[in-house]
Amino acid sequence: YTRAEVAQHRTPADRVWVTHGTEVFDVTDFVELHPGGPDKLLLAAGGALEPFWALYAVHSQPHVLELLREYKVGELSPEDAAAPPPGDTGDPFAGDPPRHPALRVNSLKPFNAEPPPELLTQSFLTPNELFFTRNHLPVPAVEPGSYRLRVEGPGGRSLSLSLAELRRRFPRHEVTATLQCAGNRRSEMSLVRPVKGLAWDIGAISTARWAGARLRDVLLHAGFGDRPPGDGEWHVCFEGLDEDASGTPYGASIPFERAVSAEAEVLLAYEMNGAELPRDHGFPVRVVVPGVVGARSVKWLRSVAVAPAESPSHWQQNDYKGFCPSVDWDSVDFRAAPAIQELPVQSAITEPRPGAAVPAGELTVKGYAWSGGGREVIRVDVSLDGGRTWRAAELGGERPQRGRGWAWALWELRAPVAAGARLDIVCKAVDRSYNVQPDTVGPIWNLRGVLSNAWHRVPVTVTR
Amino acid sequence: YTRAEVAQHRTPADRVWVTHGTEVFDVTDFVELHPGGPDKLLLAAGGALEPFWALYAVHSQPHVLELLREYKVGELSPEDAAAPPPGDTGDPFAGDPPRHPALRVNSLKPFNAEPPPELLTQSFLTPNELFFTRNHLPVPAVEPGSYRLRVEGPGGRSLSLSLAELRRRFPRHEVTATLQCAGNRRSEMSLVRPVKGLAWDIGAISTARWAGARLRDVLLHAGFGDRPPGDGEWHVCFEGLDEDASGTPYGASIPFERAVSAEAEVLLAYEMNGAELPRDHGFPVRVVVPGVVGARSVKWLRSVAVAPAESPSHWQQNDYKGFCPSVDWDSVDFRAAPAIQELPVQSAITEPRPGAAVPAGELTVKGYAWSGGGREVIRVDVSLDGGRTWRAAELGGERPQRGRGWAWALWELRAPVAAGARLDIVCKAVDRSYNVQPDTVGPIWNLRGVLSNAWHRVPVTVTR
Repeated sequence: YTRAEVAQHRTPADRVWVTHGTEVFDVTDFVELHPGGPDKLLLAAGGALEPFWALYAVHSQPHVLELLREYKVGELSPEDAAAPPPGDTGDPFAGDPPRHPALRVNSLKPFNAEPPPELLTQSFLTPNELFFTRNHLPVPAVEPGSYRLRVEGPGGRSLSLSLAELRRRFPRHEVTATLQCAGNRRSEMSLVRPVKGLAWDIGAISTARWAGARLRDVLLHAGFGDRPPGDGEWHVCFEGLDEDASGTPYGASIPFERAVSAEAEVLLAYEMNGAELPRDHGFPVRVVVPGVVGARSVKWLRSVAVAPAESPSHWQQNDYKGFCPSVDWDSVDFRAAPAIQELPVQSAITEPRPGAAVPAGELTVKGYAWSGGGREVIRVDVSLDGGRTWRAAELGGERPQRGRGWAWALWELRAPVAAGARLDIVCKAVDRSYNVQPDTVGPIWNLRGVLSNAWHRVPVTVTR
Repeated sequence: YTRAEVAQHRTPADRVWVTHGTEVFDVTDFVELHPGGPDKLLLAAGGALEPFWALYAVHSQPHVLELLREYKVGELSPEDAAAPPPGDTGDPFAGDPPRHPALRVNSLKPFNAEPPPELLTQSFLTPNELFFTRNHLPVPAVEPGSYRLRVEGPGGRSLSLSLAELRRRFPRHEVTATLQCAGNRRSEMSLVRPVKGLAWDIGAISTARWAGARLRDVLLHAGFGDRPPGDGEWHVCFEGLDEDASGTPYGASIPFERAVSAEAEVLLAYEMNGAELPRDHGFPVRVVVPGVVGARSVKWLRSVAVAPAESPSHWQQNDYKGFCPSVDWDSVDFRAAPAIQELPVQSAITEPRPGAAVPAGELTVKGYAWSGGGREVIRVDVSLDGGRTWRAAELGGERPQRGRGWAWALWELRAPVAAGARLDIVCKAVDRSYNVQPDTVGPIWNLRGVLSNAWHRVPVTVTR
């Protein structure tokens, strides 16, 4: 068989085919028997099993291969067993790394993709291969041996740190932190009125265990103190190695106080879930600002500078800000709103999926919840009747220290449901400051489609 | 005339009478001419002018008295010119101080009262006489010369500070901070389903310029450092001099980190708007915790102690916590929710009043907005059509430093309104972390009626 032939078998109606190595299998009859659920098996339909099995160690057991062998229908043709040819060298994105096939791609160039909701809450830490990717520009190819991080010290002195120096000179610090794109759940805003931006579903959020040098330690080493170097507001500005066609790099900034705070735990990270950073996530060094919008966690970090103003970058000045619903592209004044730093309280339902038909009996509803600024989620309320009545869900995951709730809570609610019912499932979270999510999308609509954190709604029917 | 006779003249229909000194005036014909608005004059109807004039310096001019003389109708009878007799000495509340007649009383014993909405946003700093009062117990009578504050230091040592020592030994620090009761706007929650607690309208919030010693400085002086004295969560516990019948004082606590933080600016306050603390507001010393629910700003402060657990006080353990709407008094487990510290984003409309008839032409809508944790309000959206369309209001007041937005923003919107229209005026605020208020009350309902911060709604009609 060719890979193209295999790719035509993606649904039970067309039969479900997958490959493993050079072998082809028809697993249609196994779909319903899959211990992880039929949905998850179908993510691999028409393609290779290996990227999925790599995520879940449970598959690397002899009986799984044995079980698979029962469904074998043939072999791939010899020429198709090889990798696809590399892209056109005139394309600035030609050097982008390979990606996991399960990712839902919102834009290919630059690459922007999110994990499918069914996989998002499978594990507290998101596997690196599934971590949502938000690139603004082509992925730079960095040779780790010649990488240098430039840090502008006070009085015009500057440091240049190699990767080895960054690892050796500063204590290694670990933080479990969730990153969320300001545009997560933007597609719900576009249903009210079209907005400008990538049509993210609920997956522009992921969690990892990050390790690196604390930005605080690097700033102190460069000669800064606990206080800003002058009066007024000071900022720490970052630039990436990713550049647009004119040579302008991606950039962003955070307030000096957060950068230098021991409690805020801002990292210059070189590890993600125990591995070196993947290329899509900033290899070899990125910023990780816990509790703050992802846009400030600059990837492929080239330079760090302290300044009396925010980063002049487009993405700091004229993007990633919220506005009143009445502001449109003719009337918007980007100076009138502050750059988003801490994000508001958020939650979403990952299972079941909108429009699903679920069996009568006990229904399990799953999702995530998170808030900015380290304000850990203290409660998630779930309604099956569109918000009339509510029950508190069970919160899973690690319980954080007060004020250091950098990571999401995964939650679950089990409830009996009657055959034939139509459910309007809704969730809303409460954070440590008792902030809650707004009921509806319309009144928080904004022209950039950011900060979409209204109650998440999932209509389902219960089969008879 | 007797005071009782004067008190019968409170409305234009009955004629509006007021007293000044021993003279009685019929100011009915002046009501509509009052430069501060008829509403504000009517607050004094049937009683003495002095308490109102004392708030607004504009009245202490000769032409005001001259103008008043035109309306004189007689004199008070000699016996009525004296003060009312003191209360029964068997009453624990008999020693409570006199209060301003404009306050709207929600409970007399203990005294709980709020300023009328029309006066709330007259000035950025609330006059001490109008500052909302939330007492849990009788007001203690403290002799300032013998007052002592006990501070439990590490290792069992303790300090005893006189008022003079507190003023002299520690730098005087000033903070403009809004205090809000957790029950502010509770009466709106009771419309959904009855809740337990005082029926506050929108006035359980006020702003003052506080001065005192920083709690940080006192803790460092007592021998504590910047870190808690042991592992885990530590708290700073306060007790007041106000006691219930069994001798149990009011008490509350805040996390050690906030108490010792220079940025959090927690005060042991002895001044309020440039005067010594009024008895109702904690004379001679109270705690002021900026950005945190009023319940932790313990009044008539008796003692400060550092402990590995929160205050054991009823008001810390079994009150002032939020719950899911489905939790009732049979199922509530107070241990399941964290004690409220930082409050969520809040706003309300003070003018016009619900049910008012306003003239066609330009309508001015006024209100306040505030958020906890120093997250200053960055925007207030106002709708005249129940939330379909929105406009951003103008924010007044002092613009704070980032992260030190301890004080409210007063806001105003002017909009043309057509004769005969029915308006459903709504406001909602956005804070620095882009948190917003929820649309409706029902889904945040809780059995204690706390944290009521849904959109504030004021229906009015426009006269033809």
